[in-house]
Amino acid sequence: MARWEPNAPERLVAAALGLFEERGYEATTVIEIAERAGLTKSTFFRYFTDKREVLFGGETVAGLLAEGILAAPPEATPLEAVAHALVIVGAQGFRAEYRDFSSRRRTVIATNPELLEREALKGLGLTAALAGALEERGIPFLISCVAAELGALTLKVSYERWCVDTASIDFSDIAIRTLGELQAAAAYVVASMVISTGES
Amino acid sequence: MARWEPNAPERLVAAALGLFEERGYEATTVIEIAERAGLTKSTFFRYFTDKREVLFGGETVAGLLAEGILAAPPEATPLEAVAHALVIVGAQGFRAEYRDFSSRRRTVIATNPELLEREALKGLGLTAALAGALEERGIPFLISCVAAELGALTLKVSYERWCVDTASIDFSDIAIRTLGELQAAAAYVVASMVISTGES
Repeated sequence: MARWEPNAPERLVAAALGLFEERGYEATTVIEIAERAGLTKSTFFRYFTDKREVLFGGETVAGLLAEGILAAPPEATPLEAVAHALVIVGAQGFRAEYRDFSSRRRTVIATNPELLEREALKGLGLTAALAGALEERGIPFLISCVAAELGALTLKVSYERWCVDTASIDFSDIAIRTLGELQAAAAYVVASMVISTGES
Repeated sequence: MARWEPNAPERLVAAALGLFEERGYEATTVIEIAERAGLTKSTFFRYFTDKREVLFGGETVAGLLAEGILAAPPEATPLEAVAHALVIVGAQGFRAEYRDFSSRRRTVIATNPELLEREALKGLGLTAALAGALEERGIPFLISCVAAELGALTLKVSYERWCVDTASIDFSDIAIRTLGELQAAAAYVVASMVISTGES
């Protein structure tokens, strides 16, 4: 039986981020991460499938988004359900006390193509989680897809803003403001096109 | 100097697809693909970085999309520019004679997580290509992002439809019809939300 280690995932994440900042992502090994956290390599792999995954904390945000969509009031429109989910992410995921950590994490990810690739794939998982939960509410497929894309784009832009914004560290505030801006942008985009008949 | 081989990339792609269908993606090696194409392993790696890449034909579609956006008339709205790009992709990329090949390719990709992952990343590259070209037209950042997401979603849904549709094999027709449907879906999504002030 493995010994129970308190806060093992949190210690591993903190150790990994520190080492990536000091030595770079490439030059850091899983063994070094485990050692700095006072844990073993096998404990590392109990929580994370590989070195990249240590910065992507499982499926937490996708789960919060899906829960948030499904917990929105029955009369909520698709985008109101998305707004509800974003507020849940701010309250339970991207909390103010994690902002500095998130900002450091973002800087490390930006320096490494492998990490950027993993982040991109995680982003697609968030879109899929939103779309799936919206469809579960009985919203038609294409409408769910569009609302999910707007929600995922809002999350991405809001996360960037949250990491660098000096005026506010409240993720929910930033996300709702961003969703409003993207709603306005989307209204402009869809209003200003005359669909052609396909001849060109 | 390497000997010049006519149509080497096309022969490699056809050989790879046939082998993936017969034996599965995992069980096929690059050497076997090259042998069936009557070429060498080093010729394979001159055109493709790895086994997965053989089904993802370089950056052709991303390039066509960007060209199409930039070649749209100066007075075109963002979504009209996107429509222009989709028609270019239909005329120069997803031509009718490639439909059966694309349909087979899609079936192979759907069976393998590694191929699905590569396809997802390529999809993000298409969104980035659309957004970048729209910004080059002087369209503001958030509007470019939204129009690019709608364009990429249109491309994805249209490609699925093109591969399975029995009524039409004209990609441009399918894409323009799909863009119209997504425009309507987006109009519904953005019209039906009352943005809250962030309290929840």
